Amino acid sequence: MYDVEKIRSDFPILSREVNGKPLTYLDNGASAQKPQVVIDAITRAYAEEYSNVHRGLHYLSNLATEKYETVRGTIARFLNAGHEDHIVMNSGTTEGINTIAYGWAMPNLEAGDEIILSVMEHHANIVPWHFLRERQGVVIKWVEAAPDGSLDPQSVIDAITPKTKLIAITQCSNVLGTIVDVKSICHAARDRGVATLVDGSQGAVHMPVDVQDIGCDFYAITGHKLYGPSSSGAIYIRPERMAEMRPFMGGGDMIKEVSRDRVIYNDAPMKFEAGTPGIVQMIGLGVALDYMMGVGMDKIAAHEADLKSYASERLSGLNWVSVQGQAPEKAAIFSFTLEGAAHAHDISTILDKKGVAVRAGQHCAGPLMEHLGVAATCRASFGMYNTRAEVDVLVDALELAHELFA
Amino acid sequence: MYDVEKIRSDFPILSREVNGKPLTYLDNGASAQKPQVVIDAITRAYAEEYSNVHRGLHYLSNLATEKYETVRGTIARFLNAGHEDHIVMNSGTTEGINTIAYGWAMPNLEAGDEIILSVMEHHANIVPWHFLRERQGVVIKWVEAAPDGSLDPQSVIDAITPKTKLIAITQCSNVLGTIVDVKSICHAARDRGVATLVDGSQGAVHMPVDVQDIGCDFYAITGHKLYGPSSSGAIYIRPERMAEMRPFMGGGDMIKEVSRDRVIYNDAPMKFEAGTPGIVQMIGLGVALDYMMGVGMDKIAAHEADLKSYASERLSGLNWVSVQGQAPEKAAIFSFTLEGAAHAHDISTILDKKGVAVRAGQHCAGPLMEHLGVAATCRASFGMYNTRAEVDVLVDALELAHELFA
Repeated sequence: MYDVEKIRSDFPILSREVNGKPLTYLDNGASAQKPQVVIDAITRAYAEEYSNVHRGLHYLSNLATEKYETVRGTIARFLNAGHEDHIVMNSGTTEGINTIAYGWAMPNLEAGDEIILSVMEHHANIVPWHFLRERQGVVIKWVEAAPDGSLDPQSVIDAITPKTKLIAITQCSNVLGTIVDVKSICHAARDRGVATLVDGSQGAVHMPVDVQDIGCDFYAITGHKLYGPSSSGAIYIRPERMAEMRPFMGGGDMIKEVSRDRVIYNDAPMKFEAGTPGIVQMIGLGVALDYMMGVGMDKIAAHEADLKSYASERLSGLNWVSVQGQAPEKAAIFSFTLEGAAHAHDISTILDKKGVAVRAGQHCAGPLMEHLGVAATCRASFGMYNTRAEVDVLVDALELAHELFA
Repeated sequence: MYDVEKIRSDFPILSREVNGKPLTYLDNGASAQKPQVVIDAITRAYAEEYSNVHRGLHYLSNLATEKYETVRGTIARFLNAGHEDHIVMNSGTTEGINTIAYGWAMPNLEAGDEIILSVMEHHANIVPWHFLRERQGVVIKWVEAAPDGSLDPQSVIDAITPKTKLIAITQCSNVLGTIVDVKSICHAARDRGVATLVDGSQGAVHMPVDVQDIGCDFYAITGHKLYGPSSSGAIYIRPERMAEMRPFMGGGDMIKEVSRDRVIYNDAPMKFEAGTPGIVQMIGLGVALDYMMGVGMDKIAAHEADLKSYASERLSGLNWVSVQGQAPEKAAIFSFTLEGAAHAHDISTILDKKGVAVRAGQHCAGPLMEHLGVAATCRASFGMYNTRAEVDVLVDALELAHELFA
C-alpha cells in the first residue's frame, strides 16, 4: 500500500503555506522537493564529514570519497546499468548531454551527418545539437508528434537514413507527459548502427528505468528532479560509446599524468569528470535515489498513474480548459490553456494566490510550442507526494481563474 | 581584533575528533570547511524555500530566484567587478576555465597562436589549454619559477610574442603558496592586446581581490575553497571579452528563442549559464562570501600572514624538513618532504593518526612537480580558522613521523 501521507510527511516544505494557503506543489516538472533524509545527509556531510575527495589520504578525505563513490553504484542500480563504471557523475542532464555533444558527437560527426530529434525535446536536448549544426554543418531532422501528443516510434525509425548518426529523444515529454517507446527506437537504431541518447530528465522520475533493456547508448538524468540536490546528476554511457569519446572538460581527476607537452587521460568514467566534483550534492542524490527505490519505482508509477487518471477526468469536466497532449501513454503532466482567457502567466498568478504552484511559459520547448501553435501554456506536473485532494485544489483554483477572466 | 576562537566556533566540523584526536584541518588548499550559516542557508533553502528559478511565476519560484540572483551581486562585490552582469555563475574554476577555453579561445585562436602558462599552474589551468594544443595546434609556452618559488612578472611579460593570444596564470600557487604579481602581468598584457586569465582558486581565499585593479580579462573562483558549498563558483569576464565569446554549454536559460532551424542566444551573462543552475549551492556561496567579507578580507589576510610567519619559523627549525617554495610573497601553504624519509603518502598517514589532515601527492600540478624534481609532497594549507596552536600540533606530528622514519 502506498502511504502518500507518510511520504508527504518526509518532505518538510510540503507543510508550509504560500499566500496563506497550504502549498499545493505542482511544479515537479521544473524541480522536485527534497525529503528530510536528503537534507539531513547534506547537513551531516558538511557539519561532520566534509573533505575533498579522491586525492587525500586523511580520515575525512577517505570518508568523503567512500560516501561519494558509493553513489556511482546507487545510480547504476537505479538505472540497471551493467557496471558502475558506465556512470559519469555530473551536475544534471544539461551537462550530460553537452558531454555527449562535445565528447562524442563533435569529433565523430561531420558536415551532412544527421541527428534525429522529436519535436517534443527540451532545449537541453536541442541546443547542444544546434551547436553542431552551426559549427560543423550537422543536419537536424525533426520527427513530428501525432495530434494527441503521442510519438509513433516507427516514425522515428523511418527517419533514419545512411547519414543518420544519432537519435536524441526524450523518454517523457516535460510539456505533454507523453511517454515515448524509447526501447523500440533504440533497438531499431542499434540494428542500423545509429547511436541513441535518451533524455531521462522526466522519465526516470516517474517509472522504473532499465538502460540495458532500453538498449540506449546514453541515458541522462537530473538529480534535482529526482528529489535530490540541485546541481547533481549523471549520464549512463554504454562502454562501446565511451571508448569513442574524447574528454569534455579538462582539469584535475580526469588525468593520469600531465606534463608540459603531453596529457595522459584517466580511465573512464573519471576521464569525463573534471575537477572537484559536486561531492555533497552527489551524496544527497544517492540518498534521494535510495529513498525512491525504498518506496519502489513501480509503486510510485502506479500512484502517479492514479493521479493522472483522476486529474484527466477532473480537467475534462472543465470544457473551458484545453489540455495539450492526451497520449495513451502519459505521465501525470498536464499542460493547458484556458479558452478565451488570459495569458498563461496570468492564470498561474491566480493559482498562486490559492497556494497552487504551477509553471507558465514555453517550458524550454520552443519547437513543441510552435508545433502546438500556442505561445505558452500552464503546466501542472505531479510527483510522488501529490494527492487526489491536490487535484481538487487545482480544479477549484482554475474555476476561480475562469470566473475572473470570464 | 581577529577572534579566531569565535570563528572556529562558527565551523561545526572543527570541534570533531579524528582518530581520537581533535581535528587539525590543514587541507584547505583542497577544500575548506563550511560555517554553520552556510549549512543553515542550505537547509532553509531546501526545507522552506525551494523551487526552480527564472522560469516560474509562483511564490516559491520568485523567492528562490531572488535569493539566487542576489548572489551575482555578492560575487561582484567580493571581486569588485564593475557590474554583476560581468559574473558568470558556475560550479567552480574547472568549469570556469573550460568556459573560456571552449567559449573564447577555441573560436578565436588558430594553429601557431601561443598561450603562456607558468610552471606553477594547477591542472585545471593546464588541461583545457592542452585540448587546444591537441585539437587545433595552439602552442603552450611555459614560464619558469625562480629557485625560491617566486615568479618574476617580467619573465612572463618577456615571453609575449606577436603570436601570444592569452596568458593564463594563477594568483597563488596551490603547492608553493607563491603569490604572483598578476596586476603587473595583466596591465602589460593588455597594453599588448593579449588576453589574461587569472586562476583565483587559491588567491581569492587568502587576500582581497579587485579584478578591475588587477586588469584581467577573466578571473575564476571556486566556491568550495571559499568556505562555500561544493559545486559552486563563478568567473568574472570583462565585457569586451564576453562579446568575443560563443556559448559553451547549450540548454535552457541561455537562450531567448529556439526553433527548429535557429537559436537566438540570451544576453550575457545568462548566455553562458545553461540549464537549471546550482540554485542552493550558489545561495550557500553567497552566504559564505558575506561571511568572509563580514570578517574582512584584509583581516583574514593578516591573520594568515601571521600563521605563515609562525609556521615558516617552526618548520625552518626542523632541519630534516625541506619546504618547497620560500617566495617573499607567499600564502600560508607549505609543501614539504622529509629528508631521507618515506613517501609523502606515508607521512600524511602518520599525521592523520594525530588528527592532522594534510594532502600528499602531486596536488594537480604535474609540471611543477617535474620542475621541482620531486615525485610528491605533503602539503599543509591554512585557512581563516587555523591557529598557531595548530602549527604546533603539525610540528609535533612531523617530529613523530621523523622519529618513526629515522
